[in-house]
Amino acid sequence: MIHFNSDYMAGAHPEVMRRLVETNLEQTVGYGMDAYTLHAKDLIRSACHTPDAAVHLLVGGTQTNATVIDALLRRHEGVLAAETAHINVHESGAIEATGHKVLVLPQHEGKLSAAEIHAFITDFYRDETYEHMVAPGMVYISHPTELGTLYSLSELEAISQVCHQAGIPLYLDGARLGYALSAPSSDVALPDIARLCDVFYIGGTKVGALFGEAVVAANPERLPHFYPLMKQHGALLAKGRLLGVQFEALFEDGLYERIGEHAVRLALKLKDAFQNKGYRLFLDSPTNQQFVCLPNAVIDRLAEQVTFELWGPRGETESVVRFVTSWATREEDIDTLISLL
Amino acid sequence: MIHFNSDYMAGAHPEVMRRLVETNLEQTVGYGMDAYTLHAKDLIRSACHTPDAAVHLLVGGTQTNATVIDALLRRHEGVLAAETAHINVHESGAIEATGHKVLVLPQHEGKLSAAEIHAFITDFYRDETYEHMVAPGMVYISHPTELGTLYSLSELEAISQVCHQAGIPLYLDGARLGYALSAPSSDVALPDIARLCDVFYIGGTKVGALFGEAVVAANPERLPHFYPLMKQHGALLAKGRLLGVQFEALFEDGLYERIGEHAVRLALKLKDAFQNKGYRLFLDSPTNQQFVCLPNAVIDRLAEQVTFELWGPRGETESVVRFVTSWATREEDIDTLISLL
Amino acid sequence: MIHFNSDYMAGAHPEVMRRLVETNLEQTVGYGMDAYTLHAKDLIRSACHTPDAAVHLLVGGTQTNATVIDALLRRHEGVLAAETAHINVHESGAIEATGHKVLVLPQHEGKLSAAEIHAFITDFYRDETYEHMVAPGMVYISHPTELGTLYSLSELEAISQVCHQAGIPLYLDGARLGYALSAPSSDVALPDIARLCDVFYIGGTKVGALFGEAVVAANPERLPHFYPLMKQHGALLAKGRLLGVQFEALFEDGLYERIGEHAVRLALKLKDAFQNKGYRLFLDSPTNQQFVCLPNAVIDRLAEQVTFELWGPRGETESVVRFVTSWATREEDIDTLISLL
Amino acid sequence: MIHFNSDYMAGAHPEVMRRLVETNLEQTVGYGMDAYTLHAKDLIRSACHTPDAAVHLLVGGTQTNATVIDALLRRHEGVLAAETAHINVHESGAIEATGHKVLVLPQHEGKLSAAEIHAFITDFYRDETYEHMVAPGMVYISHPTELGTLYSLSELEAISQVCHQAGIPLYLDGARLGYALSAPSSDVALPDIARLCDVFYIGGTKVGALFGEAVVAANPERLPHFYPLMKQHGALLAKGRLLGVQFEALFEDGLYERIGEHAVRLALKLKDAFQNKGYRLFLDSPTNQQFVCLPNAVIDRLAEQVTFELWGPRGETESVVRFVTSWATREEDIDTLISLL
Repeated sequence: MIHFNSDYMAGAHPEVMRRLVETNLEQTVGYGMDAYTLHAKDLIRSACHTPDAAVHLLVGGTQTNATVIDALLRRHEGVLAAETAHINVHESGAIEATGHKVLVLPQHEGKLSAAEIHAFITDFYRDETYEHMVAPGMVYISHPTELGTLYSLSELEAISQVCHQAGIPLYLDGARLGYALSAPSSDVALPDIARLCDVFYIGGTKVGALFGEAVVAANPERLPHFYPLMKQHGALLAKGRLLGVQFEALFEDGLYERIGEHAVRLALKLKDAFQNKGYRLFLDSPTNQQFVCLPNAVIDRLAEQVTFELWGPRGETESVVRFVTSWATREEDIDTLISLL
Repeated sequence: MIHFNSDYMAGAHPEVMRRLVETNLEQTVGYGMDAYTLHAKDLIRSACHTPDAAVHLLVGGTQTNATVIDALLRRHEGVLAAETAHINVHESGAIEATGHKVLVLPQHEGKLSAAEIHAFITDFYRDETYEHMVAPGMVYISHPTELGTLYSLSELEAISQVCHQAGIPLYLDGARLGYALSAPSSDVALPDIARLCDVFYIGGTKVGALFGEAVVAANPERLPHFYPLMKQHGALLAKGRLLGVQFEALFEDGLYERIGEHAVRLALKLKDAFQNKGYRLFLDSPTNQQFVCLPNAVIDRLAEQVTFELWGPRGETESVVRFVTSWATREEDIDTLISLL
Repeated sequence: MIHFNSDYMAGAHPEVMRRLVETNLEQTVGYGMDAYTLHAKDLIRSACHTPDAAVHLLVGGTQTNATVIDALLRRHEGVLAAETAHINVHESGAIEATGHKVLVLPQHEGKLSAAEIHAFITDFYRDETYEHMVAPGMVYISHPTELGTLYSLSELEAISQVCHQAGIPLYLDGARLGYALSAPSSDVALPDIARLCDVFYIGGTKVGALFGEAVVAANPERLPHFYPLMKQHGALLAKGRLLGVQFEALFEDGLYERIGEHAVRLALKLKDAFQNKGYRLFLDSPTNQQFVCLPNAVIDRLAEQVTFELWGPRGETESVVRFVTSWATREEDIDTLISLL
Repeated sequence: MIHFNSDYMAGAHPEVMRRLVETNLEQTVGYGMDAYTLHAKDLIRSACHTPDAAVHLLVGGTQTNATVIDALLRRHEGVLAAETAHINVHESGAIEATGHKVLVLPQHEGKLSAAEIHAFITDFYRDETYEHMVAPGMVYISHPTELGTLYSLSELEAISQVCHQAGIPLYLDGARLGYALSAPSSDVALPDIARLCDVFYIGGTKVGALFGEAVVAANPERLPHFYPLMKQHGALLAKGRLLGVQFEALFEDGLYERIGEHAVRLALKLKDAFQNKGYRLFLDSPTNQQFVCLPNAVIDRLAEQVTFELWGPRGETESVVRFVTSWATREEDIDTLISLL
């Protein structure tokens, strides 16, 4: 059986694991005050071209989203997000549990439109009863989106501009950021994100680490008192250096990038194969998640040797399925899958 | 430098780490649905003599406390806890962040008294205005306590009885449970805890794991809908099998017990040494945390070669300090420390 | 100037005010334990044909919705409501502030469809990842809706049945309930609502009282510990008898009904006039809120002598406006308005 | 039967009621945007000598405390308060329900000590692990306290100074403020409070109104976005002018002051009588609440003709009871009570 369900099925990239083993018996202070964590944060600041950035290492994505959004919003505010946003759909109400509404906007292949954000904010303050409504207090985007799509640099600049004109922060969920940065068609680099987003996170869990997400705010004043808030949210790992060691491994010599390149290259190879065999893509994803419409007979046949995810309900004759690659996907797995098509 | 600050300074016990490495490249489903996790849960049920128990694996202690307490309390209720309870002092308001008050009772070397719990509840319902007050909805105890002390079986039975007469659950925070179970003077075994407490957790972070806490409820109806609540609290690890693999290692052949025995034996050896050298114990701890009153000159001398924690403010001529052992403490470390006294 | 903006512009119905003045100097116990409140609750039970019902008197609508929804939902659940629902749009995030998501369904002239509720719940539990999503824990409807429309008895029965098959409570926001009960075309009586909805509230603020909303649960076990929850939500009025006196006045001899009849009769007279003059109704409301499309020139002319609400954005040549009647609207006000059309 | 249980047993002062009746049929905009409310706010600003103050009118005390504290605290902060503080004891966890801890300090006849506040804050930041603890984010005091006692001007100045040196706001709960301002022995005037406290509220419910509390912040920037927060907390009254009309009546020609003077004069007359008859005061209250130790036989005899409150548990031979006066207490009621002693 070869697996394409998701990008969190294996443990850590062997290089990351090697570092964890090497440092395992060392004794360091806890809660992220150790030298590994401090070094990892410096490496991340350097990769982002943000020498003064606040960098915080948390364990998982839902936890990170809830803690950051709780930190950024005032009590009467909500967060603007796409209908398909992870925080709107798949976090069991973690945002609402912190007291905040997710203000839903239409999605365009998983993306928000700067014009629609602008219109929402403008209409909101034009409404005489706006103080009876939840104020738009920040914008949440994911990159890649939950559908594998990417913002172009100009799209990101437009959204950033709309946010800053409105005086609200832009937050980017980078659970799969490595797969965005390595997409050949993308014109968005890590420093662009650090410059255009007030806060964002660099996903580790899905990109080579056992777990771990690195929150970055170019201007540290955007996240005052974030440390006790992490503790309050149960997001402060006792053995914090485990996060430091992993992000050090990922950012010391380009491993994070290499992982992204590998997975995206294989995903695009698979995408080409789908198209060559005449299958219709559900949408045009440039990253490690590929969505394709397959005849149910093909799906059933593949399912005997390959795992993948049924995306949405199964149709009468064909259905949409998702294939995901990661650092753990091998070239031969892709070749086998292609030969099965 | 040898370290006695705390029991979360090293990584995982080598045997735990070995399993993580061995299984690292396997691909399994996420979120705790994998076979390792299912097996680990069975091992824990077996160790607790609770064949039907609900077992949930979370990442850290504060997170676990907040999620369990949120699950057990109704909206108008609070949790009874000792003044020194971790949830009252050192969790940055995580319990209040879920909307619940910590109702504080006096502590006796870190422990609650069954009689005082009973009196609190009785007085509460005797007060005509009790519906204007936060109702006692559960009891939180820690074992070992934050001060290293232990409940005797009869103390635990008395508290359990008071809770059940009042119709409220008893919850035990076992962050360091391994060090309680292995204390030679203790008459409380794991199945006693599982029988007397409605919910408790078996700490992994401080007892051999990289991270991880196993919540156990002998009667699974005590924790309905706990899974989405874990997700909502950011406590559901994507690569859930990392928890399964670790608890499997800890519970498969008695490793959890051996870790406890090792650390407690060394701690008691140290305690004897303190007493033999004429130093006064701050309190009589039977577990891996030892609190002793040392002259400031001794403290300063030790600090050149040993790390430990200053407990409370530094006094004029002597101060209370804490020494903590763990699986990572070596016999020779203790011997060196004793020779330095 | 005559006013049709809303139904909360005047004080209390003179009969209600007379009772408040009459009892003003009496001294009674506070917090709703007085005889007036007890009697008012009995009158309401009697009007609902629910002899055992729990009845609670709160101050305002948003407060009531937040307290009831907080009481009914478990932590991982959300409330299903129409896109246009007051709780979704106009309560400044009061529901989310209690930690719960509003799960939005399409609205049909302000109403939910039983079939769509059923489909949502069915699809939800069919989704393999449903434990990562906010569970539908109750249904919220308003009657009349925010658009003045009404559920028919069969529609209400269908929704009630869907809820009870799914094991979740149905809650009805009756901020303007008096205007529903008195609508000639309605086949829904107060006992029907009490029978079909697990919890609902009878609005006082908009139907003759200075303020006040009466929450009713035919089965009192639906709202355990509601009293301390009211206190916690700041919804327990110190001089609780003010609520008792008012609801006594409204329910002692049919005043609540008469207020409804008066306002609805005048609203329907106005509706007829609109239609007779050839204006298009925005929607067909059988209650005290009328929505009509008027040429902007007419709107401007009317605005010199009459107040009303612009509903939605102003169009190029015509716009939708809302006219609202209440107990305080006089026949001659309607006649003047009609003559101005 | 004559009543001394509390100061919220009657309706409104007749002058307040007269205004409500006079304006009852007027139609005004809702939610506090009417002319009565604007005028009342100006009167309050004038009485406080704070021409720029933000003034907000809410319905009840618990609601006001929860909304203000929620507005002032950041997520990781708690509120310092006396053990006996209303927010700590008698609000059913309303503060914790907004996510914040009440940090308890010792009480001295209901009052906080500036030195103890200072010591708490100093010790807090001296603790190396302070970011794992709930930060002191504001100070709550009540004046009069729950025990009827008052801060002197110098005590208030000292607390204010400690707060401002620490950079945290001081909030004063003035549920019974009228009875403080009129106490002959007090040297604290309303403008002193407005100057020394960042936010405070002037209680209406217990001092002549049917209900209503006026929140004042000399510097309006202390309470940004308070209006939507009131709505979110269910504290925004639809017919907001009811609050405006009442506070206008209370502050237009010194009624608030006169009510205070009347009640305090009668309370002190009663206090003198207790002392003359040789009964021991439980504490020395200069305001409208008097606490006295009475033999149980006297208590039983009085209880046949007078209502009052048993304060704390009933003792063997004597008990502490509380007598409360208000605007509604008549001179003859006091004389009767004295004659019964």
